[in-house]
Amino acid sequence: MKPVGTDTTVGFIGIGVMGKSMASHLLEGGFSLNVYNRTKDKAKELIKRGAHWCDNPGKVASDSDVVITIVGYPSDVEQIYLGDDGILHHLSPGNIAVDMTTSSPQLAARIYHKAREKGVAVLDAPVSGGDIGAKEGKLSIMVGGDEDVFNAVMPIFSLMGKNIVYQGSAGSGQHCKMANQIAIASTMLGVCESIRYAEKAGLDPGTVLETIASGAAASWSLSNLGPRIINGNFEPGFYVKHFIKDMRIALESSEEIGLSAKGLALAKSMYEELAEQGGENFGTQALYKNYL
Amino acid sequence: MKPVGTDTTVGFIGIGVMGKSMASHLLEGGFSLNVYNRTKDKAKELIKRGAHWCDNPGKVASDSDVVITIVGYPSDVEQIYLGDDGILHHLSPGNIAVDMTTSSPQLAARIYHKAREKGVAVLDAPVSGGDIGAKEGKLSIMVGGDEDVFNAVMPIFSLMGKNIVYQGSAGSGQHCKMANQIAIASTMLGVCESIRYAEKAGLDPGTVLETIASGAAASWSLSNLGPRIINGNFEPGFYVKHFIKDMRIALESSEEIGLSAKGLALAKSMYEELAEQGGENFGTQALYKNYL
Repeated sequence: MKPVGTDTTVGFIGIGVMGKSMASHLLEGGFSLNVYNRTKDKAKELIKRGAHWCDNPGKVASDSDVVITIVGYPSDVEQIYLGDDGILHHLSPGNIAVDMTTSSPQLAARIYHKAREKGVAVLDAPVSGGDIGAKEGKLSIMVGGDEDVFNAVMPIFSLMGKNIVYQGSAGSGQHCKMANQIAIASTMLGVCESIRYAEKAGLDPGTVLETIASGAAASWSLSNLGPRIINGNFEPGFYVKHFIKDMRIALESSEEIGLSAKGLALAKSMYEELAEQGGENFGTQALYKNYL
Repeated sequence: MKPVGTDTTVGFIGIGVMGKSMASHLLEGGFSLNVYNRTKDKAKELIKRGAHWCDNPGKVASDSDVVITIVGYPSDVEQIYLGDDGILHHLSPGNIAVDMTTSSPQLAARIYHKAREKGVAVLDAPVSGGDIGAKEGKLSIMVGGDEDVFNAVMPIFSLMGKNIVYQGSAGSGQHCKMANQIAIASTMLGVCESIRYAEKAGLDPGTVLETIASGAAASWSLSNLGPRIINGNFEPGFYVKHFIKDMRIALESSEEIGLSAKGLALAKSMYEELAEQGGENFGTQALYKNYL
């Protein structure tokens, strides 16, 4: 494993809202950057700033020392890593791949083991903090895999995040992200029910929010999403459709490790209902709309 | 309505853990105090410090200008206010009664209207902040009833609390408290599921907690009760049995105002399960025990 330094070439696959900000910090940090995205247009600005375009993920892999991926669904991750022309075919011994997609912990472990057979190190390193955290380089990064690889990649992580924590063996980063999403899922039920209750009871929900948001009912969701709900603002900070994806992974993973996560199951089913009624592109606070 | 001043005699019914601290602040504040409690023993210290003992609630009512009640269940509130020898029979026009029990909003409105026929003003003013908030005089007090009465009683409230907010007409204080408990109920599902998930996934739950407790999953419950769960500490900050009482009121009230509070219903049923298995005297964090 080559130490990561400014002579390290980093590959970046997945230039979405998150990926674009994250890759941008790597350019600013002085790394030579290879990029690929399904829609080339989204990589234009990075290319203008010096990133090298690659026509496919395999090319990114063969031309880079460390490859970072942040894509959509576990199926995309599986395709990119393990597919017929997946990056595992193109990475060389000593290379490192880091999947920062929120994806399945079980898939992460599977990729880790496949890669290891080839002498390639893989970390799972999903993030939280959203587009603002990505833009400001203040993401939380939850990392699973080998600890020496985690340490080696730290110069790259530290350009993108602030709260960067090693969680354990392969898949542990994803598991930690799932624990995060599980905590949020039921909290959202409480926030939306509470505000709807206040309104239906004839109270002023803003006054109620001010009263309860600093005590034992306090939560990030109540303080940050509560006011948006009251103002009828359902614009996405975090998309309903993306949260549903995460909750599906979390519920599958819960079942796999033998946990009956009833709050999560309820939240997931209600968000799916919301999506079926056309709410998939709202922000997660739109769960409120389920409470008629 | 006589203005509340240091010549006001205050009656206090219900000298439990909360009531004792609250009444103590009123004594320190210079009020003349009449007290009654089902178990006289619990009032001993207050009596030693100058409070006058009354043999029944009616005596408290007839000897006081402002009567405060903080008892157990809505059935106790109903008995004390509307029972055959209830305080409404003993209060005089111009007197004020303040129920600080967490109780039914609908009952609060009923008592308000009965009292009004007699020229007696009633506020519903449940609190949050627990025994520590009561001891430190830092309770949140959520008040329903007439606003001029709320203003008149402020010198008394301000000795017991910090965050004292008028919520609207009779019952609104209770409704606000219910909104608070509804937000907490589902959040507790999320907190317990998240920690149990982390453990079952083989992660170090303390590390996970540190990682997620300051981001979008942040909540008072996660930060304050999460560490207790991890340390196997299920001692009561807030008793399971009291939370169940509150959730029953909240669910009944939700049904009454036409809200299907599914998260609340799930949390309530799980806490009831916990109580049936002998957990009623644990703290609310013991919900964790339901996740095997």
